[in-house]
Amino acid sequence: MRWSVCLAQVGATSASSSVDYCQNVPLAGQENMLSETIPPPTCLLKPYVVPHRYMFGPGPSNVPPRILAAGSQPILGHLHAETVEIMNHIKSGIQYAFQTNNRMTLAVSGPGHAAMECAIFNSVEPGESILIVVNGIWGERASEMAERIGARVNTVVASPGGYVTNKEIEQALVKYKPVVLFLCHGESSTGVVHPVNGIGDLCHRHNCLFLVDSVASLAGAPLHMDKQGIDILYTGSQKVLNAPPGTAPISFSERACQKIFNRKTKPVSYFLDMSWLANYWGCDDKPRMYHHTGPVSGFFSLREAFAILAETGLENSWKQHKEVAEYFHQGLEAMGLKLFVEDKMARLPTVTTIVAPPGYDWKEITAYIMKTHQIEISGGLGPSAGMVLRVGLMGCNSTKSNVDMILAALADALKHCHKSRV
Amino acid sequence: MRWSVCLAQVGATSASSSVDYCQNVPLAGQENMLSETIPPPTCLLKPYVVPHRYMFGPGPSNVPPRILAAGSQPILGHLHAETVEIMNHIKSGIQYAFQTNNRMTLAVSGPGHAAMECAIFNSVEPGESILIVVNGIWGERASEMAERIGARVNTVVASPGGYVTNKEIEQALVKYKPVVLFLCHGESSTGVVHPVNGIGDLCHRHNCLFLVDSVASLAGAPLHMDKQGIDILYTGSQKVLNAPPGTAPISFSERACQKIFNRKTKPVSYFLDMSWLANYWGCDDKPRMYHHTGPVSGFFSLREAFAILAETGLENSWKQHKEVAEYFHQGLEAMGLKLFVEDKMARLPTVTTIVAPPGYDWKEITAYIMKTHQIEISGGLGPSAGMVLRVGLMGCNSTKSNVDMILAALADALKHCHKSRV
Repeated sequence: MRWSVCLAQVGATSASSSVDYCQNVPLAGQENMLSETIPPPTCLLKPYVVPHRYMFGPGPSNVPPRILAAGSQPILGHLHAETVEIMNHIKSGIQYAFQTNNRMTLAVSGPGHAAMECAIFNSVEPGESILIVVNGIWGERASEMAERIGARVNTVVASPGGYVTNKEIEQALVKYKPVVLFLCHGESSTGVVHPVNGIGDLCHRHNCLFLVDSVASLAGAPLHMDKQGIDILYTGSQKVLNAPPGTAPISFSERACQKIFNRKTKPVSYFLDMSWLANYWGCDDKPRMYHHTGPVSGFFSLREAFAILAETGLENSWKQHKEVAEYFHQGLEAMGLKLFVEDKMARLPTVTTIVAPPGYDWKEITAYIMKTHQIEISGGLGPSAGMVLRVGLMGCNSTKSNVDMILAALADALKHCHKSRV
Repeated sequence: MRWSVCLAQVGATSASSSVDYCQNVPLAGQENMLSETIPPPTCLLKPYVVPHRYMFGPGPSNVPPRILAAGSQPILGHLHAETVEIMNHIKSGIQYAFQTNNRMTLAVSGPGHAAMECAIFNSVEPGESILIVVNGIWGERASEMAERIGARVNTVVASPGGYVTNKEIEQALVKYKPVVLFLCHGESSTGVVHPVNGIGDLCHRHNCLFLVDSVASLAGAPLHMDKQGIDILYTGSQKVLNAPPGTAPISFSERACQKIFNRKTKPVSYFLDMSWLANYWGCDDKPRMYHHTGPVSGFFSLREAFAILAETGLENSWKQHKEVAEYFHQGLEAMGLKLFVEDKMARLPTVTTIVAPPGYDWKEITAYIMKTHQIEISGGLGPSAGMVLRVGLMGCNSTKSNVDMILAALADALKHCHKSRV
């Protein structure tokens, strides 16, 4: 039995730029048809080193070395005792960050969009009515997802940069009799943190579940799942939590469980079916069964993200984001820039929307800042496209020194970019 | 403006076992309702160190340090120029590993199950007929997924450890007139590598797409997407590729694209909609738009996994798995153990199924080997549950010295575990 000399490279710890490419030896006894004809791509034969960048867009935000280190530990099985223990720790971390005692608490094995579909797929059946508060792109996406599964979708629409009142919500609840109300708490496209108080009670009075997206706000702005009567809450890993994207915490109240575990039809997705996910995460009384292979390394990172939050303290985190955002907003106004969200109380402390400076091409500004300062900031999205610049300062990025760095970069950009229009 | 002393810990590079837990200071001007009441979980206040383990189950397999290092590079934005370049490299890597020139080639932002749903959700519309070859758990799961979206599902069932003939497939194609035929190439539950030659032609003659699952076989057993007429092929990152779970390569032929981009209905999932994913991965002619936040760190790892495969050579990888599997199978038979798959040609070179040793409790054997040797091997799954032990030797784990280690561990287990039944 012969061995390919190249196999010794498999476990090598560093890539070499002058790789010995193996000559492919035809396999004895195989038809000619079964020889390799598409050659190995040369782009893969050089190592790729990723640059460091200040991730001050709406996410992902920078991942601290401690979380990167946690994620690069040796792999374990998705049902090994240690993995199960880590998943239990994550569950506790989510309960803390969400301020909930819900047993039905876990992380979806995908990005925020997977959690969004998990929430909608499980809580709404075809033909049922869902009411969606659209105050930016996330309400639009929720509508699209609900339509695809055959729900009857109605919306209450806020003007970009604004929000809807509890009175408007109640009128719509009465009119459309939805089984679920969707609301985005931290609308990263417009920079609005939507008021939440009182809406849970309204929903419950009208026999409706309250579903909240907190991808861009969790741990950056106060949110109390249980006290505020939120029935389904989800977030992403890559914003304030500072973990890499790819896992998405979610939690369901007892009231939500009553509905989702008494459905007439199966959810369209097996991968996102809460009956299976609940078991995989030990939220029921049955022994854990194989459902899918979770992103084990992503769970290692996510656990570390929650460890940092537990050490920092949730209230300290809220306070940090509030103070840094206010300091940033003052600095922007002192430069003569205008904030997109006029109501100070409605400004999201994690993602700031700045009215695109008149006379400038916003794309030139973001490109200049990326190229000259290695800082990512972004333009608008959905209803704010072309209208704003967006700056995210989340988790470990939320510091006054980062604010000073961005303000200097913005001033530099306004000085060097073309002011062709007025 | 005061700063929490704890915030300095956010960027710390190592966790301390005696963490200074922050006293939560009530926020001035906030209602009492908005104070934190669920305390931070104490389980998160200690660092968690993951043990090293030999991952010789059906996956995930061990991740070499080089791939772990790639995945722990600093995060980038999901649409940064470097990320796009890395995604292009991954695409080339997939084309090589799949032996395809398909332009519509990308990685799904989730585990193999997400790719499986992506394949089915996009290629089958409600009411259409799908034919599924069930030769183990993966055919069962594909059936379940297709049923959930309202497809008409018919199956051809092989006995556990066996496979179906092209004649049986053709008869079923004639009978059920499916738009898609699903086949699992590497059936990890039974240890069968299903023959593929000729089936693509049969499907095309009967106006049907040929969809193949290669999660457990890719790069471990010969597969030629283009030459074998496979229209949709997907795999996972955590088997032979040795990357962490959480990304799933997939590719669509021109014939498949003709169908999926001319649907009457939208796929049920926005997250897995190929119209969006094609754009996100630069497979169409439009500028890339934001769809969802991809698992950027997972892409770094996956690129490195394909770099190793390109250096090793696909044919060498096939040869390595074949030779190591044969060496393993000889060793097992020499010990008096019996292989579950009788037909030598149908034995999967990546995952071996061993008939559960008569008189023993298989669970005691796997637990003993895990505890005493830090080696994961597993029991059966689906139709093979309770009937087999499963051993996976994939990618960097596929070596003769690992075979020797497992054979010694098995011999030790048979000596020390209870032989209560005969």
